[in-house]
Amino acid sequence: MFTFNKPGVESFFQTLNIAGFDVSPDETELIYSTNLNGYYNLWAMKLDKGYPYQMTTANQMHSFVKYDPKGRFILTGFDRDGDEDYHIYAIPMHGGETTPVLQEKGEKFYYGDLSKDGETLYYITSAGNPSFLNLHKLRLESGEKELLFKGEEGPSYLYSVSPDESSFAFSRAVGNTSVFGYISQQGEHIPVTPSQDTPHRVSQVEYLNDKEVLVLTNFESEFTYLATFNVADRSFGKLTEVEGYEFVNLTLDKERNRAFFVAQRGVEDHLYVYDLETRQASRLEIPVDIVDSIVAGKKGTIFVLGKSSTAPANIYRSADLEAWEQITEHKIIGRGREELSEPEVLRYPSFDGLEIEALYYQPKEELDNGYTVLWPHGGPQWAERKSFKAVIQYLCTQGFRVFTPNFRGSTSYGESFMKLVNKDWGGGPRLDIITGMEWLDKQGKSSSDKWFCVGGSYGGYMTLLLHGRHADRFKAFVDLFGPSNLFTTLETAPEHWKAADAESIGDAVADRDKLIEDSPMTYIDQMTKPMLVIQGSNDPRVVKVESDVIVEAMKQQGQDIEYLVLEDEGHGFSKTENAITVYKTMVQFLQKYI
Amino acid sequence: MFTFNKPGVESFFQTLNIAGFDVSPDETELIYSTNLNGYYNLWAMKLDKGYPYQMTTANQMHSFVKYDPKGRFILTGFDRDGDEDYHIYAIPMHGGETTPVLQEKGEKFYYGDLSKDGETLYYITSAGNPSFLNLHKLRLESGEKELLFKGEEGPSYLYSVSPDESSFAFSRAVGNTSVFGYISQQGEHIPVTPSQDTPHRVSQVEYLNDKEVLVLTNFESEFTYLATFNVADRSFGKLTEVEGYEFVNLTLDKERNRAFFVAQRGVEDHLYVYDLETRQASRLEIPVDIVDSIVAGKKGTIFVLGKSSTAPANIYRSADLEAWEQITEHKIIGRGREELSEPEVLRYPSFDGLEIEALYYQPKEELDNGYTVLWPHGGPQWAERKSFKAVIQYLCTQGFRVFTPNFRGSTSYGESFMKLVNKDWGGGPRLDIITGMEWLDKQGKSSSDKWFCVGGSYGGYMTLLLHGRHADRFKAFVDLFGPSNLFTTLETAPEHWKAADAESIGDAVADRDKLIEDSPMTYIDQMTKPMLVIQGSNDPRVVKVESDVIVEAMKQQGQDIEYLVLEDEGHGFSKTENAITVYKTMVQFLQKYI
Repeated sequence: MFTFNKPGVESFFQTLNIAGFDVSPDETELIYSTNLNGYYNLWAMKLDKGYPYQMTTANQMHSFVKYDPKGRFILTGFDRDGDEDYHIYAIPMHGGETTPVLQEKGEKFYYGDLSKDGETLYYITSAGNPSFLNLHKLRLESGEKELLFKGEEGPSYLYSVSPDESSFAFSRAVGNTSVFGYISQQGEHIPVTPSQDTPHRVSQVEYLNDKEVLVLTNFESEFTYLATFNVADRSFGKLTEVEGYEFVNLTLDKERNRAFFVAQRGVEDHLYVYDLETRQASRLEIPVDIVDSIVAGKKGTIFVLGKSSTAPANIYRSADLEAWEQITEHKIIGRGREELSEPEVLRYPSFDGLEIEALYYQPKEELDNGYTVLWPHGGPQWAERKSFKAVIQYLCTQGFRVFTPNFRGSTSYGESFMKLVNKDWGGGPRLDIITGMEWLDKQGKSSSDKWFCVGGSYGGYMTLLLHGRHADRFKAFVDLFGPSNLFTTLETAPEHWKAADAESIGDAVADRDKLIEDSPMTYIDQMTKPMLVIQGSNDPRVVKVESDVIVEAMKQQGQDIEYLVLEDEGHGFSKTENAITVYKTMVQFLQKYI
Repeated sequence: MFTFNKPGVESFFQTLNIAGFDVSPDETELIYSTNLNGYYNLWAMKLDKGYPYQMTTANQMHSFVKYDPKGRFILTGFDRDGDEDYHIYAIPMHGGETTPVLQEKGEKFYYGDLSKDGETLYYITSAGNPSFLNLHKLRLESGEKELLFKGEEGPSYLYSVSPDESSFAFSRAVGNTSVFGYISQQGEHIPVTPSQDTPHRVSQVEYLNDKEVLVLTNFESEFTYLATFNVADRSFGKLTEVEGYEFVNLTLDKERNRAFFVAQRGVEDHLYVYDLETRQASRLEIPVDIVDSIVAGKKGTIFVLGKSSTAPANIYRSADLEAWEQITEHKIIGRGREELSEPEVLRYPSFDGLEIEALYYQPKEELDNGYTVLWPHGGPQWAERKSFKAVIQYLCTQGFRVFTPNFRGSTSYGESFMKLVNKDWGGGPRLDIITGMEWLDKQGKSSSDKWFCVGGSYGGYMTLLLHGRHADRFKAFVDLFGPSNLFTTLETAPEHWKAADAESIGDAVADRDKLIEDSPMTYIDQMTKPMLVIQGSNDPRVVKVESDVIVEAMKQQGQDIEYLVLEDEGHGFSKTENAITVYKTMVQFLQKYI
């Protein structure tokens, strides 16, 4: 009876997200971080009712949320408008006022673990050790603090604490791809892997009991796998692996003697249950392509936060590991899943024969404007995966095709692949992209004269670099908080990232020539196409000056340059209204050059 | 383990409200208007799941919401930032883009009824007849419109349409307290009450079948009751009444041959079911003090939107009319019901012996600052009732007692009581208030030297008048969009209110002296106490100039005057952030004078 127009940009960016969750010890309530009221806050729901109610009014992104095992309080972390200085707060079980537990201006406090009795909080902080971080414990009742480990050489994090609190597991990073794991017991630091001579990562350590831990590591392997380490006899042994898959999100269900983990490769995830008795891993059928986190309820229900290309983050539960019930109903306003673009998974050989995987999104045929947006992801050690991305779906409804190659350096294609970006930010990855564009043109999936480039963070850096070195391949560029000068990036990085940055980007002195070669600013004279630059004022990762200089230089050259600064945002756009402004501006900008 | 401070003002004003709802014809889904994302929008939930999802992104207050009986679309109305020019829109069943159905700048479109086949919309509009309104029907498919009735003498509304669409029921108001009801059949206008010689109101007409209607009217009675009218033989008969109670919200459940209505008196509501066969009314036990609306689901479930002093609006359902399930979980963040102030119901004799009912809210003893806020309600033909009011609960947590007398003119104390305010805006009601304050002082519930006054709309008018005529009784005043000059109020009222205003306020010529006597501006010289004035720019009921003049005059007198103007609000504060600003400012203002 009525012809309904499709909803506009608002409908995509008002899609709710879930950033994390926990389940109460009595398994009656679920608490989660969502932007239901336009800002991130903690909300909760009774699991037998399903209607959400607001728990905090902080209007800030959380870093973690954890119920006291005895049900007396909830712990969480918030930063301030994207500054990433997360502090730790307690909130009452029924919600309300947050009470600071660990708060110090300009410092970071990360959650480590909470003792089984809920009395002792283990945490990681930048306070007193901004480069390498310190590990502490805090008696919540008395406020008494104790230094457990002082980070040195590289930043340290705390994995977990033994049930009797006689030992704890911690990491020491000496680079993005070298993170060693240790058990600290009576002052001794016992490595959980047999040797630290070769680079490898220990990504998770969970205590099965006071003497035995489960470990996720890629020690002597391309991919992380599940291993066991016995503190008593120092024995290490691989338990299970899946060839070509990276294990993440290890979650114990001790009551049922089983563990869950996610096996991830490239663009999607698989969920496994591992029987600790029979030592058998079985893959579970799940309703999502990507698993963000898992909580094993005390009564045996498994909760999964996950998403797909055409379905935003939702929480699902299963009592029998077969049937899954969706317990949140976040969806895109006014659009069914079939109306969104499900990406095609493409694989192409790069300039040197290396296989590159990419996602390729197409608009509905009747909307297709013939233009393709190259979307280089951030990180660079990260990957574009089958997860709902409002901006990409929005681009498709506006007629754009979107191409997101997981260039060398992307995660979950193996350790060697990931390391290929190290000290080569502007080399191989850039050529993977250019080769991919040529390949896509040849497939007839894009037109060589109809390309745009939009990227954020490292993707913004790549956007700037492509503008400087391949301006002729594109109509226009949109840079979202991308580093423009790698010397500045090294200098202004958060202290505890500097070691990893040195490994990933390079050393300002030793790698000077390469850093000049790979810095977009080097090619400023060749940036001749229209560009829109978008930056958050509080961004602690890519500081505003990186955008300021490129905008200023483009202006001086008399180029078409637009600049949008968000005063209350950091590295990304956490507030719904800001996201709408940013992406509306972006599409309007692109449409001018069609 | 932690001492939690109570949450601040935000927690009260982030309490979600529900402004109306409907249930889908297949009874699987519920749609409702709520400010879940900080603005009013329509949200829906599957009734077997209970998790809400957003249906519109208009960010505006709705005027009604109605499912197409055949499940093809949903109709709703929105105004623009409080201008009360409601237009009618259709939205798809799965939500998304609103499509205008009836939209014309500066005009109002009210929902009347929707034909049983969902093909014809009956509506009321100011277009072409701003004073008295016209009734139309619109064929939704063809867009063809037909004028059904041209309002004359007083504004007309449409109650409902007969199942076969051969007749419709409409009202003609000749004043606030004289609203006559008619059936329009083949051009003839048949009154549904036996005589129009004496003033009375017909507040609702619902068709049982093509010839018989149920009527709520106070014809020859102080209170509205349930009656029947037969169009064929023109017979009228009282069906049931409850002595001293006003019937509202008549809702038919034809499938089960029953009707529901609310019996209201003073500060609370009772819900009744009426068996149309046995002609018996029975009172139902309900979990709320106030019933805002009722929907009888096609499958027999009854849905009620209701609230109490310490519980905000929520939707409840009952299949057997005995057990009620709460299906939304709106509550005050971080506060249990027991932490809120449950008002005491007081009754006192006024200056002339008339009994006045009032609510009296006390803060927890340890918070009590000894000061009492007089809160005269708006209307004036309205009443302060046992419904959750964020601002009152907030005042209590800040240590204030709150006194809300239902002075003469208040609704649901009988027709005579309500009419007592007519052409006496500044007389009896003001003395009821002053007498109530004296009485409260004598009861030891307030101190004669510790009073503030805060009121909105008519309550704002009363605040200004009390300031002008009883400044010595108060420490300070807060006027929220109150008329300051009754001549201006008469002049600037929406056209279709003018007839009713003449009856309620008076005639600018005939009642000139009384209007001068009752206009706050008359007493501007005696306004000697500090005052805060708050006004929405778009307010169509009390235009901004009414506040401007009083603020300007107070300034010229050198008085303590503060003025807060909300650019994107009308008559009230619909946006959460605005409400927080307003009431924070208000309490800070009051606290200066303690």
